[in-house]
Amino acid sequence: MKFIHTSDWHIGRQLHNQSLLDDQRHVLDQIVSLAKTHEVDALIVAGDIYDRSVPPANAVALLDEVLNEFIALGIDVIMIAGNHDGHERLGFAARQMQASGLHIIGPLGAQVCPIRLSGEGGDAIFYPLPYAEPATVRQILDCEAGSHEAAMVELLKQVHEHDSQGLPKVVIGHCFLDGGSESDSERPLSIGGADKISPKHFQPFAYTALGHLHGPQYKGAEQVRYSGSILKYSFSEQHQHKSVTLVELNSGSPASMTLLPLSPLRDVRIIEGALDDLLKQGAKDPGREDYLMVRLLDKHAILDAMGKLRSVYPNVLHLERTGLMANNEQLAIASDHIKKGELEMFKDFFTQVSGDPLSEAQLDLLTQTLDELHKGEAER
Amino acid sequence: MKFIHTSDWHIGRQLHNQSLLDDQRHVLDQIVSLAKTHEVDALIVAGDIYDRSVPPANAVALLDEVLNEFIALGIDVIMIAGNHDGHERLGFAARQMQASGLHIIGPLGAQVCPIRLSGEGGDAIFYPLPYAEPATVRQILDCEAGSHEAAMVELLKQVHEHDSQGLPKVVIGHCFLDGGSESDSERPLSIGGADKISPKHFQPFAYTALGHLHGPQYKGAEQVRYSGSILKYSFSEQHQHKSVTLVELNSGSPASMTLLPLSPLRDVRIIEGALDDLLKQGAKDPGREDYLMVRLLDKHAILDAMGKLRSVYPNVLHLERTGLMANNEQLAIASDHIKKGELEMFKDFFTQVSGDPLSEAQLDLLTQTLDELHKGEAER
Repeated sequence: MKFIHTSDWHIGRQLHNQSLLDDQRHVLDQIVSLAKTHEVDALIVAGDIYDRSVPPANAVALLDEVLNEFIALGIDVIMIAGNHDGHERLGFAARQMQASGLHIIGPLGAQVCPIRLSGEGGDAIFYPLPYAEPATVRQILDCEAGSHEAAMVELLKQVHEHDSQGLPKVVIGHCFLDGGSESDSERPLSIGGADKISPKHFQPFAYTALGHLHGPQYKGAEQVRYSGSILKYSFSEQHQHKSVTLVELNSGSPASMTLLPLSPLRDVRIIEGALDDLLKQGAKDPGREDYLMVRLLDKHAILDAMGKLRSVYPNVLHLERTGLMANNEQLAIASDHIKKGELEMFKDFFTQVSGDPLSEAQLDLLTQTLDELHKGEAER
Repeated sequence: MKFIHTSDWHIGRQLHNQSLLDDQRHVLDQIVSLAKTHEVDALIVAGDIYDRSVPPANAVALLDEVLNEFIALGIDVIMIAGNHDGHERLGFAARQMQASGLHIIGPLGAQVCPIRLSGEGGDAIFYPLPYAEPATVRQILDCEAGSHEAAMVELLKQVHEHDSQGLPKVVIGHCFLDGGSESDSERPLSIGGADKISPKHFQPFAYTALGHLHGPQYKGAEQVRYSGSILKYSFSEQHQHKSVTLVELNSGSPASMTLLPLSPLRDVRIIEGALDDLLKQGAKDPGREDYLMVRLLDKHAILDAMGKLRSVYPNVLHLERTGLMANNEQLAIASDHIKKGELEMFKDFFTQVSGDPLSEAQLDLLTQTLDELHKGEAER
């Protein structure tokens, strides 16, 4: 049994108001190719398929296309709803899709529904556990589960009790494991750390395919894993390497995992420097179309810095004027600046806008105008 | 081949801010029963499945349940998107549902996809044509179709050209046939009558299952039909009888149609009369829980008429004070009323609110208070 574990597709997500649909199509196509190359039996998507409970129509159309490619290749797909997904919407007509090998698990049911899939190295049983609040688990399972951890323990009881006839058990979940590394792009499941679950609960299973955290990682044991998201969904993820996880299960031996890297259409990076230096570097930067956060170190006012940067780096999404940050030194410079008087300030401004200093004639005219203004003020 | 033709479910629709989901579940369950009783081979839903392109989650869950019942009975379902539906959303994963007998046609494709279904009296070919604006048809079919009619003619060309091997052809469409009777609950397809299509284009086919108009009717020929909506979605439909159409196709003979009536959980009606009479009648009205528009004929002011009506008719959705309509007579009464003076008006008001006339003591106190007020005014 060979499958690809992925999660957190967040189809339809925007990064600083920039649609990522083309970027998502690009990596999803890669996952289709990887599945083909590695001849996998199944694709597991561990939640947060869409970014919102009501995804835009073009996100729905993209998912439809991608799923169709997997199914056409004879690859079974199991996907569960995450905390971002609209469970009822995602689960619509799911029972009618199963015969085609598409298993979508939207709302949590009272009974976990094991899915047995066949592969060359033997079969395996998958236990899909869509994301559910503890209150939902209490209501649906009619149990007392005060926390995310207690709720998961209740669900896993059913997995333990199910007779897999000696076949490996694979749990699919969407939750926050204690000790997991967060980024800026996960939406907290609850406030104050009450969402954490100990990884130990998953150790008895052959493999646990998790979603929620956007960095690929394992916790407690190598086979208890987050595949991570398919794209960097915040600048805090700039140093992460996105991938999907290729999992091989052979009866008798532990699961073997390989990370298959994804290469994005455009990277998400932070660059830092003085405007002139950045503009010069940008001219020969092969990644100048990446999604960028720029930290400008210049200490003086710059007219339309964003426009200048975008003439070289078209996808600057965010600009920080680090060099202008309020600190004593900066404040001192600012007050020095004011002391300069109108003449000096206008000279700076003119040079900034036109690229050239004032000519003699212009300087004369300016001085004369300022004198007249000052005289007028004094008379009043 | 025996099938039920229905349309315009508008799941998730509200009537004057009242959710109709329970009412919709009630009649949809009836359709399931009718399909079972009449042992039909298929269910055809000719568009406007949902009321909005983004239906509420409970509407999605209801449709999921209902479809599941039909599929579990072994009844094939073909449904097309209407002008109210979100085509991409409705068509999600449609290709993965076909093997289960669920055929959802969301966005229009360049090729009409004939669906062959089997029945006891012989097979038939269904040609589902989801609703599409002429501009969409021009783009997708790469043709010149300036109107709804021209666009339909282009689509029907494909139906004519398809070789059905002698089997009856059934067209499924969502459009406005010339001469069709409207109600207040259809959303116009375009302004100024440019949405009308001559019924003659559909006459060559064994049967045409149409959606859009909410009253059951046929145009041009008996087999070119609107099944009508499953519920009255406006008070203008109060006199309509809602039904689904049972269609039988036997090779060699024309289609035979029977209307199977639907009985709603609550009717949609208009009642008219004086408040007291209506309240008296209501006490013994078995349909007092119907959705009502009330036209009050009383000519005097009534405090909280809606509250009083709802104590007897809990689902009054709209109130018209027909008796207070501005006309000469009404104005005359109103000005008579003003001439009455404060004392008479307050006496009326008190009786209205408390149900009893003023006592002697109360009348004395009121007269005294009014005198003081008038004296005060005169002095000023």
